[in-house]
Amino acid sequence: MADSTQSMSLIANGELPGYQVELGTDGPLRLDSGAELGPFMIAYQTYGNLNADKSNAILVCHALTGDQYPAEKHPVTQKDGWWDLMIGPGQVIDTDRYFVICSNVLGGCMGTTGPSSIDPKTGEPYGPEFPVITIGDIVRAQKMLIDHLGIEKLFCVIGGSMGAMQVLEWASKYGDSLYSAVPIAGAPRHSAQNIAFHEVGRQAIMADPDWCQGNYITENKRPRRGLAVARMEAHITYLSETALHRKFGRRLQEREKISYGFDADFEVESYLRHQGSTFVERFDANSYLYITRAMDYFDMAAEHNGVLADAFRDTNVRFCVVSFSSDWLYPTIESRTVVHALNAVAANVSFLEVQTDKGHDAFLLDEPVLHKTLSGFLDGAVRNSGISI
Amino acid sequence: MADSTQSMSLIANGELPGYQVELGTDGPLRLDSGAELGPFMIAYQTYGNLNADKSNAILVCHALTGDQYPAEKHPVTQKDGWWDLMIGPGQVIDTDRYFVICSNVLGGCMGTTGPSSIDPKTGEPYGPEFPVITIGDIVRAQKMLIDHLGIEKLFCVIGGSMGAMQVLEWASKYGDSLYSAVPIAGAPRHSAQNIAFHEVGRQAIMADPDWCQGNYITENKRPRRGLAVARMEAHITYLSETALHRKFGRRLQEREKISYGFDADFEVESYLRHQGSTFVERFDANSYLYITRAMDYFDMAAEHNGVLADAFRDTNVRFCVVSFSSDWLYPTIESRTVVHALNAVAANVSFLEVQTDKGHDAFLLDEPVLHKTLSGFLDGAVRNSGISI
Repeated sequence: MADSTQSMSLIANGELPGYQVELGTDGPLRLDSGAELGPFMIAYQTYGNLNADKSNAILVCHALTGDQYPAEKHPVTQKDGWWDLMIGPGQVIDTDRYFVICSNVLGGCMGTTGPSSIDPKTGEPYGPEFPVITIGDIVRAQKMLIDHLGIEKLFCVIGGSMGAMQVLEWASKYGDSLYSAVPIAGAPRHSAQNIAFHEVGRQAIMADPDWCQGNYITENKRPRRGLAVARMEAHITYLSETALHRKFGRRLQEREKISYGFDADFEVESYLRHQGSTFVERFDANSYLYITRAMDYFDMAAEHNGVLADAFRDTNVRFCVVSFSSDWLYPTIESRTVVHALNAVAANVSFLEVQTDKGHDAFLLDEPVLHKTLSGFLDGAVRNSGISI
Repeated sequence: MADSTQSMSLIANGELPGYQVELGTDGPLRLDSGAELGPFMIAYQTYGNLNADKSNAILVCHALTGDQYPAEKHPVTQKDGWWDLMIGPGQVIDTDRYFVICSNVLGGCMGTTGPSSIDPKTGEPYGPEFPVITIGDIVRAQKMLIDHLGIEKLFCVIGGSMGAMQVLEWASKYGDSLYSAVPIAGAPRHSAQNIAFHEVGRQAIMADPDWCQGNYITENKRPRRGLAVARMEAHITYLSETALHRKFGRRLQEREKISYGFDADFEVESYLRHQGSTFVERFDANSYLYITRAMDYFDMAAEHNGVLADAFRDTNVRFCVVSFSSDWLYPTIESRTVVHALNAVAANVSFLEVQTDKGHDAFLLDEPVLHKTLSGFLDGAVRNSGISI
């Protein structure tokens, strides 16, 4: 099984699918913190074909633990791509019509430069010396990739959860470079509860002695137990109570009676342990720290003296904002806040709250209303834009 | 600062307030698992005076991390008692009228026998050899205490959260031994989500190398980091999103700008870290494992072939069931399930859903509607019972 720290060379060697490009060679990326990063690598994958006038490109932004493989078997886990239901020939994001780009975020661990990458200045992994990044930095790096690909205007930027944050950031900072934006199950800022859950996950990782103050790669260790606990905790927040109940209830795991012990008596325990233990095989602990931190720092209104609408003033982007009724991690009120801000600047915005009991993860699941709505929105955007797709 | 493992001798030496009694000397406690425990100690505290006919006793049942000190400065933390707002002269549970008993639960760490106690058979702490217990076992041990005190019928059994589970168990198993029952913010069984959150906490503790497979006391270590993470996670579930937002929002902790690092930039992070680090000074990690497990196993209907009402058939107990509208850990629907079961057996039951945005912890807080309702319920129960208080 591939270790996340090997992903850079695996892509370069053709052992992982997709592309890798070095960016920032003519000047480093200036981060929100004031630090500079560069040159750096961006790993990305594409599906479909770019048309002649480069007008059919859709940028798909992944969530916290996602990566650039939304629409193919994952090269490490061999599982279906995380947005396999959404992207493909004849699907909502129809790869017979659109050119889909998905890049691993800055700070990630699947080939884009992150804390597990080698710092060219030292020849050692960055580890805790990697600079703290923001959603703004992540999107700035994506923009460099899109520029590198020679695409002046994206047809659409779309994503769920942290992907939605990137979508909003794109629309705010590079509004002239995209025609439409679809933030799903997102928020314009991280709430106190969101920060709290992330902080517990980070503390679990940093409490693991094998984290080695962030230097576990050079120490040839991995904070597996801490990262697994962080993943288990986060996973609960991705599901609604109803979904957990339907999936597991109080059913026992391969036994007829409770064991009066601390084994995984209940299916839900066994499931969570499995989620934790498989996650550590594909994800880097420091990436988890850095990306959760970027999410916590996200606060679009704060950059505009508390006025969220000012983040979108004079926008020409067409928006389709989506939330899920049972999402308690990024509840509908967060999406409504975005919609109100967009209304305040007379933006072109559709809003859909999908009635579902599946919780936050609904954006990854088979939700016919979601899929139908997005198909309609994209079709309308094509007609309205006058582009030939 | 007192270590929880020293609490037994501290109470015996008079260094902690309250009483300790040895029970099971004439025959061990038979646990639900089939194991036997005994003799064992129960530590308890009382407030007010028992009247001549022993008819004015109220048993207060504590929650997961509570103890037998609800109405006085906590002897370890020096903080106000956890139910200081509820119990005292002239309060809802008026110690000028009632005799209040509160005992540390079996498996606890404040003087009642638990995993940190010395196993008389070996002279060593039980550690992981302590038998797994249930809410039924906890209540069975309490019943032995009440028998020991010569009280034939409790005027009331009351408690919140895990305390409510004990109240329901009392009413079900020993219905003739109590006149009234007040389960607050409880549930008749632990949901998949409840189990999931507990399992993450347990995994955090067991992932700490200083847990030493449960033998940390003999190894002279303490799994402080793991227990702190467990406490941080649990603490989030005790508050509503609204309460967290009002308390902290995205306010920064003693700084004007974010630090672009992993220090506690946000007040909510600092608060959670404080919750974690202070908790480990007063609570035993193995007690946390055993008591959460007892809660997970709680499922009253399962003992009655899935028919919850059968747990209360022919009951003469007067019930006042209380829930909080913003409690997402034990939501109102759980209390409603109890009420429906009680209605099905024509029990005498009042039900109150307190409209509050404070979340699960509201049972500990200043909630005038709660306090007024409980005062009225207790007054009515006194009149109705014909006892002279």
